[in-house]
Amino acid sequence: MDRRAFNSSLLAGSLAGLLLPGARAQQTAHSAGKPVIGLLVYPGMILLDLTGPLTVFNIMQADIRLMAAAMAPVTTDVGIPVAPTHSFETAPAELDVLFVPGGLKGTVDGMNDPRTVDFLAARGERARFVTSVCTGSLLLGAAGLLKGYNATSHWYVRDLLPLMGATMVADRVVADRNHITAGGVTAGIDFGLALAAKLTSEDTARRIQLLIEYDPQPPFAAGSPERAGADATNAVLTQRAPLIRQAEQASRSAGARLGIP
Amino acid sequence: MDRRAFNSSLLAGSLAGLLLPGARAQQTAHSAGKPVIGLLVYPGMILLDLTGPLTVFNIMQADIRLMAAAMAPVTTDVGIPVAPTHSFETAPAELDVLFVPGGLKGTVDGMNDPRTVDFLAARGERARFVTSVCTGSLLLGAAGLLKGYNATSHWYVRDLLPLMGATMVADRVVADRNHITAGGVTAGIDFGLALAAKLTSEDTARRIQLLIEYDPQPPFAAGSPERAGADATNAVLTQRAPLIRQAEQASRSAGARLGIP
Repeated sequence: MDRRAFNSSLLAGSLAGLLLPGARAQQTAHSAGKPVIGLLVYPGMILLDLTGPLTVFNIMQADIRLMAAAMAPVTTDVGIPVAPTHSFETAPAELDVLFVPGGLKGTVDGMNDPRTVDFLAARGERARFVTSVCTGSLLLGAAGLLKGYNATSHWYVRDLLPLMGATMVADRVVADRNHITAGGVTAGIDFGLALAAKLTSEDTARRIQLLIEYDPQPPFAAGSPERAGADATNAVLTQRAPLIRQAEQASRSAGARLGIP
Repeated sequence: MDRRAFNSSLLAGSLAGLLLPGARAQQTAHSAGKPVIGLLVYPGMILLDLTGPLTVFNIMQADIRLMAAAMAPVTTDVGIPVAPTHSFETAPAELDVLFVPGGLKGTVDGMNDPRTVDFLAARGERARFVTSVCTGSLLLGAAGLLKGYNATSHWYVRDLLPLMGATMVADRVVADRNHITAGGVTAGIDFGLALAAKLTSEDTARRIQLLIEYDPQPPFAAGSPERAGADATNAVLTQRAPLIRQAEQASRSAGARLGIP
């Protein structure tokens, strides 16, 4: 794809999409100009990890592909299954964006599944942007895609990233060259808007933010370990300890495969 | 249901759910203590309107019912269908929480559908909490549930609420007695946490906020008309004008039915 044509048609198309009724139909004729965004879906993923960014990509009129090992609908945390649009075999080889959501149990299963890891490695090597929300970055890491990159994850597993060659940065959204990783669950909205600005323009991203009224006013100051305090943080860590231990084991195995010292 | 038993078992159950692995299985034995939350699902709804609060309710281990006119899966903005768990006929008569998500086109269709309006009126009259996110409050209004209440909605239709007897308040989450309405799309997360605090305890709600890492850092100051500025606001209003006009017409019809002067 010609990147200049891609960028200019995308910019025009997305702004038109937000400004003009009927623009979606018009843009279909120029579908070569839409960014192809491949989102991994897998059993046990957190639906909100997917829905936040997907809502932004959808308003952006991106070409969205939901990719899974098989075509059967995958389960999610809230009991609403998601049907893939593509299997690993039929997913495009070239993606503008590879995106991986989180969900700790499912993430660990995926890290231990060679087909999933190989699929992510192959698509990630060629994608324009390699991205994740929440524990999804552990899957990127297991696929060798974070070696030498700054990255983040859900706060309760982000310390595992260096086991797979990444440098952990405790920010909500961490961009390093073409790799963008985000913190837990709701960080997907901040990430989606940041990526929309890169794929289109800041003006378009700001209009999407206005459409989804993202002017957050959390009822409590409790959304990070620092704000929530040691008692609440330790309570969550205790509850999640068995899964976090499994994630650590999977990260060490992946690190060994990847030759991380 | 005995409200004191409800509250005390809920408090204990939900804290245990966050603190102890295996608590979900233990709590099943006390399922009478779970709040019954009925979420309306309808064609054209915005999946993120549903997913934000639903994620919070799910962590809270609430008894979740997805209620629709028929049992067929309903379409959503992002193309992921949602299968109801209950039809209007099989949904419980008594709900602890009635919740309605938004999605302007589908909202207007619902306002003009007597079955939907009658269902909401019947469940809303008896529910402990009557709640909505985004344009969902227009459906509550059409069902006569907002007469004499302070309420809000997505910023681009909230001025229609007085046509159905409500007093519009331009806040992100508006609580008036047992009615809680929220602004557009992402306001559902703020709302969900605020309601979780009322149904359980502030401690529980804070832990859920930590689990979903809701420590927002929007990339732009653009999430409200005031922040986004007149140009961006007018662009969105122009794009949505045909649907907003339909919503106004449906609100006026509902107001006439309800005898609003």
